[in-house]
Amino acid sequence: MKAPLNSGNDQAAVILLSGGLDSATTLAIAKTQGFRPYAISFRYGQRHGVEIEFARNIAKQMGVVEHAVVDIDLARFGGSALTSDLPVPKHQSVEQISRGIPLTYVPARNTVFLALALAWSEVLETGNLFIGVNAVDYSGYPDCRPEFIRSFESMANLATKAAVEGRHPVKIHTPLIDLTKAQIIRTGVRLGVDYALTTSCYDPTANGLACGHCDSCLLRKRGFLEAEIPDPTQYAN
Amino acid sequence: MKAPLNSGNDQAAVILLSGGLDSATTLAIAKTQGFRPYAISFRYGQRHGVEIEFARNIAKQMGVVEHAVVDIDLARFGGSALTSDLPVPKHQSVEQISRGIPLTYVPARNTVFLALALAWSEVLETGNLFIGVNAVDYSGYPDCRPEFIRSFESMANLATKAAVEGRHPVKIHTPLIDLTKAQIIRTGVRLGVDYALTTSCYDPTANGLACGHCDSCLLRKRGFLEAEIPDPTQYAN
Repeated sequence: MKAPLNSGNDQAAVILLSGGLDSATTLAIAKTQGFRPYAISFRYGQRHGVEIEFARNIAKQMGVVEHAVVDIDLARFGGSALTSDLPVPKHQSVEQISRGIPLTYVPARNTVFLALALAWSEVLETGNLFIGVNAVDYSGYPDCRPEFIRSFESMANLATKAAVEGRHPVKIHTPLIDLTKAQIIRTGVRLGVDYALTTSCYDPTANGLACGHCDSCLLRKRGFLEAEIPDPTQYAN
Repeated sequence: MKAPLNSGNDQAAVILLSGGLDSATTLAIAKTQGFRPYAISFRYGQRHGVEIEFARNIAKQMGVVEHAVVDIDLARFGGSALTSDLPVPKHQSVEQISRGIPLTYVPARNTVFLALALAWSEVLETGNLFIGVNAVDYSGYPDCRPEFIRSFESMANLATKAAVEGRHPVKIHTPLIDLTKAQIIRTGVRLGVDYALTTSCYDPTANGLACGHCDSCLLRKRGFLEAEIPDPTQYAN
């Protein structure tokens, strides 16, 4: 972590909040570091649109200053199992997850999300953005890698009026980057995150239950197992 | 220009098309370079939303393969005279335009636009993006500078599956970057652009006439004067 706990720094920060486990933990860390949290979520045509309702509940329960839910029609472009009728890959265990970049990759998703978070952060007069990417129990997405994040940060510092005028440089905080899923969960539990309010599933059932077999469900299950913390998720299978 | 005229390269390219003079010229250049043009326009809550209708007409008249009009509610964030009720600055001549970054700057606009164009380009299996920024008769926007564009290109090459897998690196074409407004207009006229189909005004009247006094109108007027080409625009004043 880049700042001491309870530093009371009183700066605003924009936190990307998906409704999942990682971003809820990231929000808790930002709060613990003393940032005034503004949460941003995206309704982008994802098949697991139910995650937006989870994000709303998390934002409310964790007391953010404001929660922006932004519509962007990435399904207009397609190219992903999350935004089209391509099937979401399912497996029996984490070991069976395919190597390489999975079909659930959404073209340029984190670039689009960070760009919109950057726009809001500039109006809020802050350069602090938080994103819950991690490089250990890793999704395989290119736009979750540290080298992408650092490059986005450099670009952002040339993009905005506030950064160019030297008022507040852009800093992309990635507090989960070096943590395993189990370490993320332990951190969140210590900070009071209620993981029953989160969802990780890419392909929930019609009544909102997690499928239990997409990459994201499998990584979540193993994380709780390794953390030796009960998983509050209701899985369909 | 980076490629010879009529090279017949047959690659797809995504062209940012605002409905203005610069982007229409950029589209003409991309076509002349042999690219199969896909145009993308953004309805982002701009007060000059009429430019979208101009973009539709330009796209149709210039024969693009497809024209995507994407909604993103940047007015949700505010912070600009173009997306809020802050007044658009007006002047009598180009010389009176304020130094520095103007009030019409929209936070992170080109970052957001290029991010969405990048998403589409990846699905279209191309890395070619065209944007009509220029550094001479310059808007003062930080995200129109060459250093921003180069940095976005580097970031994009770490962001997408296609770039990371080496299938098609991202190349951001800026064919207008070193041209004056007059040179842009002369180029467009040579390539058959009908500038009567374009609009530059930030603050059109209720019946769609250009105001004649915003920075964008003033730069346009001077460009036609210097190019010694009649300006087809109907100005209210």
